Amino acid sequence: MANGSLDISSRHRLEMIDVTDRLQGILAAEGVQEGVLHIYSPHTTAGIAINEGADPDVQRDLLGALNRIVPSDYPYQHAEGNSPAHLMTMLSRTSETLFIHHGCLRLGTWQRVFFCEFDGPRSRQLWWKILPG
Amino acid sequence: MANGSLDISSRHRLEMIDVTDRLQGILAAEGVQEGVLHIYSPHTTAGIAINEGADPDVQRDLLGALNRIVPSDYPYQHAEGNSPAHLMTMLSRTSETLFIHHGCLRLGTWQRVFFCEFDGPRSRQLWWKILPG
Amino acid sequence: MANGSLDISSRHRLEMIDVTDRLQGILAAEGVQEGVLHIYSPHTTAGIAINEGADPDVQRDLLGALNRIVPSDYPYQHAEGNSPAHLMTMLSRTSETLFIHHGCLRLGTWQRVFFCEFDGPRSRQLWWKILPG
Repeated sequence: MANGSLDISSRHRLEMIDVTDRLQGILAAEGVQEGVLHIYSPHTTAGIAINEGADPDVQRDLLGALNRIVPSDYPYQHAEGNSPAHLMTMLSRTSETLFIHHGCLRLGTWQRVFFCEFDGPRSRQLWWKILPG
Repeated sequence: MANGSLDISSRHRLEMIDVTDRLQGILAAEGVQEGVLHIYSPHTTAGIAINEGADPDVQRDLLGALNRIVPSDYPYQHAEGNSPAHLMTMLSRTSETLFIHHGCLRLGTWQRVFFCEFDGPRSRQLWWKILPG
Repeated sequence: MANGSLDISSRHRLEMIDVTDRLQGILAAEGVQEGVLHIYSPHTTAGIAINEGADPDVQRDLLGALNRIVPSDYPYQHAEGNSPAHLMTMLSRTSETLFIHHGCLRLGTWQRVFFCEFDGPRSRQLWWKILPG
């Protein structure tokens, strides 16, 4: 299976970074027509979400409401102080399996693929692997 | 890989629709004995959950408690007013990978596969792809 | 595809059990060098999380904060009284797809794979399937 990694630079503590076009570019470069694309976040304070990309307010709402759900006043013990980011990671996804059709990512009308930073700014990666077929 | 789509009609704003038998029917129609079944929700206000199907109270409890977790009084900016549904989608799953064994979905004793409507009623789809082996 | 099952015994109501070394042992026993490892939890009150393993405080923080997020005072109807465990399962993962590289699980620096018990103590399983390539 072809595989590789995207480098991602986040600029904020909480940020949803649209990587759809970069994933699509990988499919074009690999020349794969049909199959599945596995993506994987190798981080414990960042994850993956597939959600609406048309209106940036959705991303702001998602991050703001998620930040309210995760308790800020819990007596966290982890000395680094980023336990809320670990929990947001647990509540988002580490791996996703996307479909490839006619050489393109087969997404829903409003779907975009986001790398979700929960403890930025940092240098991050998103790993991928393609299974043709 | 064989692939296709299920059409799903939801009738309520929040609803868990059991699609296990329809997925099992796909395996029978395709005649696949061993492998994996990838399922994918192409929506941004609906997702997937694998949970108990025996007692319908579990589904009511899951939707009711999830609805309480997602804040209703957050100052959402997204003009469509369905940001809570987008967040519920982020908190459920977009893709799942199920195992196939002896021509059947290999599920746990109490597990059923649910399409989760968070912004219904709507016409929806669930995409699938089978990798034999 | 090679496949099998891990037996897991939990000892507490809420517990994150590190299964990374056991998964790595499967790869060694199967002699697989490259591919993907699909893991699957067949339970409705237990799930999977990939998160930090270096500091045990992170696991305590994750379980404690998750337990606070899931409402304890909701009028749950399910007679078994474990609806919060069903919801925690919905909020964690049932399946994950991990990458295999040079005969090893390819994880991020701080990542470990956890089986998450939400209604223990119980005897549990974690199913796996390897796709080489």
